[in-house]
Amino acid sequence: MPESTLLVFGADPRPRLDRLTGRARIVLSDEQSLPRLLPTADALLVWDFTSDAVRAAWPGEGRRPRWVHTASAGVDRLLCPELVASDTVLTNARGVFEQPIAEYVAGLVVAMAKDFPGTWELQRQRRWKHRETTRLAGTGAVVVGSGPIGRAITRTLTALGVRVDLVGRTERTADPEVGRVHDSRALAGLLPSADWVVCAAPLTEDTEGMFDAPAFARMKPTARFINVGRGPLVVQKDLVDALLRRTIAGAALDVFETEPLAADSRLWDVPGLLVSPHMSGDTVGWRDALAEQFMDNFDRWAAGEPLFNVVDKRLGYVPVP
Amino acid sequence: MPESTLLVFGADPRPRLDRLTGRARIVLSDEQSLPRLLPTADALLVWDFTSDAVRAAWPGEGRRPRWVHTASAGVDRLLCPELVASDTVLTNARGVFEQPIAEYVAGLVVAMAKDFPGTWELQRQRRWKHRETTRLAGTGAVVVGSGPIGRAITRTLTALGVRVDLVGRTERTADPEVGRVHDSRALAGLLPSADWVVCAAPLTEDTEGMFDAPAFARMKPTARFINVGRGPLVVQKDLVDALLRRTIAGAALDVFETEPLAADSRLWDVPGLLVSPHMSGDTVGWRDALAEQFMDNFDRWAAGEPLFNVVDKRLGYVPVP
Repeated sequence: MPESTLLVFGADPRPRLDRLTGRARIVLSDEQSLPRLLPTADALLVWDFTSDAVRAAWPGEGRRPRWVHTASAGVDRLLCPELVASDTVLTNARGVFEQPIAEYVAGLVVAMAKDFPGTWELQRQRRWKHRETTRLAGTGAVVVGSGPIGRAITRTLTALGVRVDLVGRTERTADPEVGRVHDSRALAGLLPSADWVVCAAPLTEDTEGMFDAPAFARMKPTARFINVGRGPLVVQKDLVDALLRRTIAGAALDVFETEPLAADSRLWDVPGLLVSPHMSGDTVGWRDALAEQFMDNFDRWAAGEPLFNVVDKRLGYVPVP
Repeated sequence: MPESTLLVFGADPRPRLDRLTGRARIVLSDEQSLPRLLPTADALLVWDFTSDAVRAAWPGEGRRPRWVHTASAGVDRLLCPELVASDTVLTNARGVFEQPIAEYVAGLVVAMAKDFPGTWELQRQRRWKHRETTRLAGTGAVVVGSGPIGRAITRTLTALGVRVDLVGRTERTADPEVGRVHDSRALAGLLPSADWVVCAAPLTEDTEGMFDAPAFARMKPTARFINVGRGPLVVQKDLVDALLRRTIAGAALDVFETEPLAADSRLWDVPGLLVSPHMSGDTVGWRDALAEQFMDNFDRWAAGEPLFNVVDKRLGYVPVP
């Protein structure tokens, strides 16, 4: 195979791509150079996955790369109609983020059950104030998103004694891993009994804005909502209203309609809302893991073998077998 | 059996003791009346277990109750030489606190791994600051205290992917539940490789002050320490020094040498120290559970059957079979 051209969008990952030395010509691009360089690329590595530049540049002139890999689980920022319709293969970072995100969600659930935010606020005030907290075992969660992240969250919460209903696009009555997956039409009926509602769904046309005022209205006043999927899955102003009116008891958002969250956003100080900067999956070494995974797929590509983590571009995610 | 006299120390639990109506004469006592009322009691329920009044009053004049039940797991505040030497049976609240405390500890571990305190401090400052955090799976913990609480913590951390070494008074090489229990002499050798050190030991002559400067010096600079046992297990000033000198990376204390912690205690604002007001086991309904458990034991006592949760007064805890 002749040396191929690998275009990289984002900060220079070459120190981590040592196994590609002599096997690919690596060209770096930024937002400005991307439209010009795309026709020169055999493959595109989307290393900075927080930008819309690829989607903006894709429907352009000339040849397109035959393979695009994104160093993220979600592919919502990439998909444009022309990419979906093309023969280009799209792969993602499935496998890197699941367990860290599941740990993060489990931590948020315990932190809210035990009111760590309240305890540490009292610590700042030097006040000793004993309270009764919630026992996790025996509570119930609805996890939305039946991909690997939702499944890892389900396993981890189950291990903590939480009953979990997992919701996906299509029903599965005999799933080998979790037994039953509810289809999305069942969600409305599951929300009224959930103590925890966790959103780990991919962002697609079907899921955008799915957590809106009617959804929050179905939840218990004691329910807590967590979003580790993508910001636009939630109608933020409806969530703020639900918290201010105590329709639900609390929420934690790791993702937002616009990131980074502006310093003057009202979200920073809504009572009962915990804000974190899109970091739930990012544990020490994650960049190395992403590079290793890309190079493993590159080995297959160079050998003409089928790639792994191939995204179904019409669904918007890698289907669970 | 003639109606017996049940002396209760602490706030009135009678609304919860409905099953005793007509079966016992319930007499309430406080710190002042306890010495005078003790000789009149067939049994003593220590409902307020945060006081030293029973230990202070016990070696007094006259008859002593034949049975003492404390609504706590630890019995350190009760044991005086005269009670230990007497025929009085002492029972405790084993079974009520294990799972809640294990959840609490798991939450603290995740909160520290993911730096929730830092994230929520940044939220207060309206600052979006992405950081890499620690993956829990693959880290290692040492849990000190091989009773039911230490065992529940071990189960829960193991479920989160943490390798756990459990340390107790005596070695067990084929424990049916956890496989191996290390004896306390092994602790010094285990500390240097632990990411998490969790203290859930009973407070006895042997364990008092066991976490002191030499113990902290053996830990990794990245290690975090958690105490949910009793305050005097830790030499507080040594822990403060270890945190200020960054001998270890962080700590969480739910119990203290003196409780409640005084408003002017230096502990409230030691960097890296999380303070909570002795509440790790106290989930909604815990008082009801404690009353139910006492009444179950009362049924046995009234029927002349052996009591459950009998404390080995010389060891200072209920031995694991």
